[in-house]
Amino acid sequence: MQTLESLGYTVFFEENLSSLEDFIFQRQYSQILILVDRNTNDHCLPVLQAAMPSITDYDIIEIDPGEENKNIDFCIGVWKTMLDFGADRKALMINLGGGVVTDMGGFAASTFKRGIDFIQIPTTLLSQVDASVGGKTGIDLDNVKNIIGTFTQPQAVFISAKFLATLDERQIRSGFAEVIKHGLIQDRNFYEKCKDVELDTIETSMIKRSVEIKNDVILKDPTEQGLRKILNFGHTIGHAIEGYSLSNDRNPLLHGEAIAIGMICEGFLSYKLNGLSEVELEDLTTLFLARYSPYTYTSDQYDGFIEIMKNDKKNEDNKIGFALLKEIGNAEYNIYVDKNDIVEALDYYLSKTK
Amino acid sequence: MQTLESLGYTVFFEENLSSLEDFIFQRQYSQILILVDRNTNDHCLPVLQAAMPSITDYDIIEIDPGEENKNIDFCIGVWKTMLDFGADRKALMINLGGGVVTDMGGFAASTFKRGIDFIQIPTTLLSQVDASVGGKTGIDLDNVKNIIGTFTQPQAVFISAKFLATLDERQIRSGFAEVIKHGLIQDRNFYEKCKDVELDTIETSMIKRSVEIKNDVILKDPTEQGLRKILNFGHTIGHAIEGYSLSNDRNPLLHGEAIAIGMICEGFLSYKLNGLSEVELEDLTTLFLARYSPYTYTSDQYDGFIEIMKNDKKNEDNKIGFALLKEIGNAEYNIYVDKNDIVEALDYYLSKTK
Ligand SMILES: NC(=O)c1ccc[n+]([C@@H]2O[C@H](COP(=O)([O-])OP(=O)(O)OC[C@H]3O[C@@H](n4cnc5c(N)ncnc54)[C@H](O)[C@@H]3O)[C@@H](O)[C@H]2O)c1
Ligand SMILES: NC(=O)c1ccc[n+]([C@@H]2O[C@H](COP(=O)([O-])OP(=O)(O)OC[C@H]3O[C@@H](n4cnc5c(N)ncnc54)[C@H](O)[C@@H]3O)[C@@H](O)[C@H]2O)c1
Ligand SMILES: [Zn+2]
Ligand SMILES: [Zn+2]
Repeated sequence: MQTLESLGYTVFFEENLSSLEDFIFQRQYSQILILVDRNTNDHCLPVLQAAMPSITDYDIIEIDPGEENKNIDFCIGVWKTMLDFGADRKALMINLGGGVVTDMGGFAASTFKRGIDFIQIPTTLLSQVDASVGGKTGIDLDNVKNIIGTFTQPQAVFISAKFLATLDERQIRSGFAEVIKHGLIQDRNFYEKCKDVELDTIETSMIKRSVEIKNDVILKDPTEQGLRKILNFGHTIGHAIEGYSLSNDRNPLLHGEAIAIGMICEGFLSYKLNGLSEVELEDLTTLFLARYSPYTYTSDQYDGFIEIMKNDKKNEDNKIGFALLKEIGNAEYNIYVDKNDIVEALDYYLSKTK
Repeated sequence: MQTLESLGYTVFFEENLSSLEDFIFQRQYSQILILVDRNTNDHCLPVLQAAMPSITDYDIIEIDPGEENKNIDFCIGVWKTMLDFGADRKALMINLGGGVVTDMGGFAASTFKRGIDFIQIPTTLLSQVDASVGGKTGIDLDNVKNIIGTFTQPQAVFISAKFLATLDERQIRSGFAEVIKHGLIQDRNFYEKCKDVELDTIETSMIKRSVEIKNDVILKDPTEQGLRKILNFGHTIGHAIEGYSLSNDRNPLLHGEAIAIGMICEGFLSYKLNGLSEVELEDLTTLFLARYSPYTYTSDQYDGFIEIMKNDKKNEDNKIGFALLKEIGNAEYNIYVDKNDIVEALDYYLSKTK
């Protein structure tokens, strides 16, 4: 059995979720609710059911898949369904899905009757390596991502690489951007390993190392006072592009695709402002451009991007704060950056994709 | 200066809120948001402004007054306004109002960007003696009270009896039910004192002692594992009647009026099931009936009441849990009561008001 200890709970890495059934039985919940979206209902629920054959009495709550549904309307629907099912404070919520399901389900559970227990079973690579530790729950409002949420730890997280078998390659590629990020900010060797990975054969050991890097950062800074901000590398610009794409593109960028762009831009800022070498900037730019298709925007959009960044949670006192690399495998945070430099970074990405 | 220490924060009892301005300055907030309802905007905001003459830069968020507006729609409005005002994580929210404002404002603040600081300035007797300590935030959904919320402590609470000058006598009377409750569950002498109080001259010392009783209970049981449930005396039946009245009466019961009825009913249950003497049952029944007008319901409504009780947070494993008196000044909790006895208790109240 492979496990990691996070903030008061265990992350289990188990192909067959073999500890799950006992884990639930021991806690004597009054009731079990399983939150899925349509896709995880079809592809992942059977895996979960096979893993807990003795647990047959549960209620399913289903939401529509996709980031555009990670909103307060669906959340109200989830709350009302919990109410309809008569959930009490000893009920357990199992969130089975990608980050949309784990984030919204975590938020719904953490606020229903002022908080009931929940277990996260992330089923996308992205949610496995990123949403599995840290205790962030949340939903979007007016296209501002995760603007409403709580810090609440789950009772446990179960990660099985099996779920990835039914996931689009595009989704895996998106999640892989976070894996690369963990290498970039903390572990140069791991970053180098990422260069050779084939996306259809990602091993549990790779997922585990990625979670471990994030978890180590979180354990050093549980209340997000400082260090934890390095996990935002690529996310300040990435979130802005993601938000823009979500409201403007017919086929919007996935989270990881957006932060891959963000990491190129913020790589440039690291080079310009924080001592990252030109060679390393080129190395990471090349890696991302080889794996992720180019995206187009124009300078007309820059003001909009910067508006979104200003609304971003990492922003304080109206300045825009970044986490930037010092070198590959080493990141720093609380670097406040000018609008002009952000524009230059956005231009840099465009120049590389022409 | 009179203060109490609660869970990591101070409750200040100050006519003129004289420590408030310094308290805010010391913390260097990026921005100040003040949540009011229409009435506290008119009657209480001037008092607050006079108390912090050097703080002139703040944004006001106003909601409509009344329990029927303590809902997710207004909460979404509050969140969106916070977003429009560009609030960042270092913003402070001051909730200036009765329990509707402090509960909803506490919830909005505790979930905005995963939590910003807030200060509670309760302006009704009820919210001063009850909502001021305990860290409960919340809103109603589908007429189920406080079904969505968090446990989040404010940075401070400021209590001034001055605010009560503009409050309806009916509102004061309602809040006074909670004051009596604190006597009933913990302090027989204090209960006796309540008998002589004139509602237009409630003293700060009385408010303070009432808060102190609740605070002592909370400090002994910060995570609501047990003892804290005694604070629910009168509330299991009271909440059901309150919910019913809210959706059926043109002029619905106030919270305290409903729990006054609840305390008579649960006083009866205490007598029937938990050893409260008949003399003491009569004593408390007489006190409440002397102060609170009779309310009418019929046995047709009992099933509806019991349905609401089953949805109540104190309910576990589908049984209905009560806090009941052993004697005046001494309460016990986790007493699971049958539907039949609840019916008898509801009948008892009716028989006394005929
Ligand atoms: N809480 C955190 O710390 C944290 C960290 C990173 C990202 N997030 C959030 O996660 C979200 C993105 O997560 P995501 O990429 O997992 O998105 P997602 O939940 O939308 O999943 C992507 C798609 O894959 C489908 N899917 C999920 N698992 C599947 C499987 N095993 N087989 C087939 N289809 C499957 C989903 O239905 C969806 O259509 C964002 O909202 C982001 O804000 C949260
Ligand atoms: N969080 C807790 O621990 C806790 C405890 C008890 C009650 N509550 C909640 O509190 C709410 C009831 O509180 P409430 O009775 O204060 O209700 P409220 O906030 O609705 O206030 C009652 C009325 O008085 C007005 N008002 C408030 N202060 C005034 C003043 N100084 N002068 C003139 N008018 C004023 C309000 O606008 C409103 O119309 C309920 O929603 C209840 O669930 C919470
Ligand atoms: Zn991310
Ligand atoms: Zn109450």
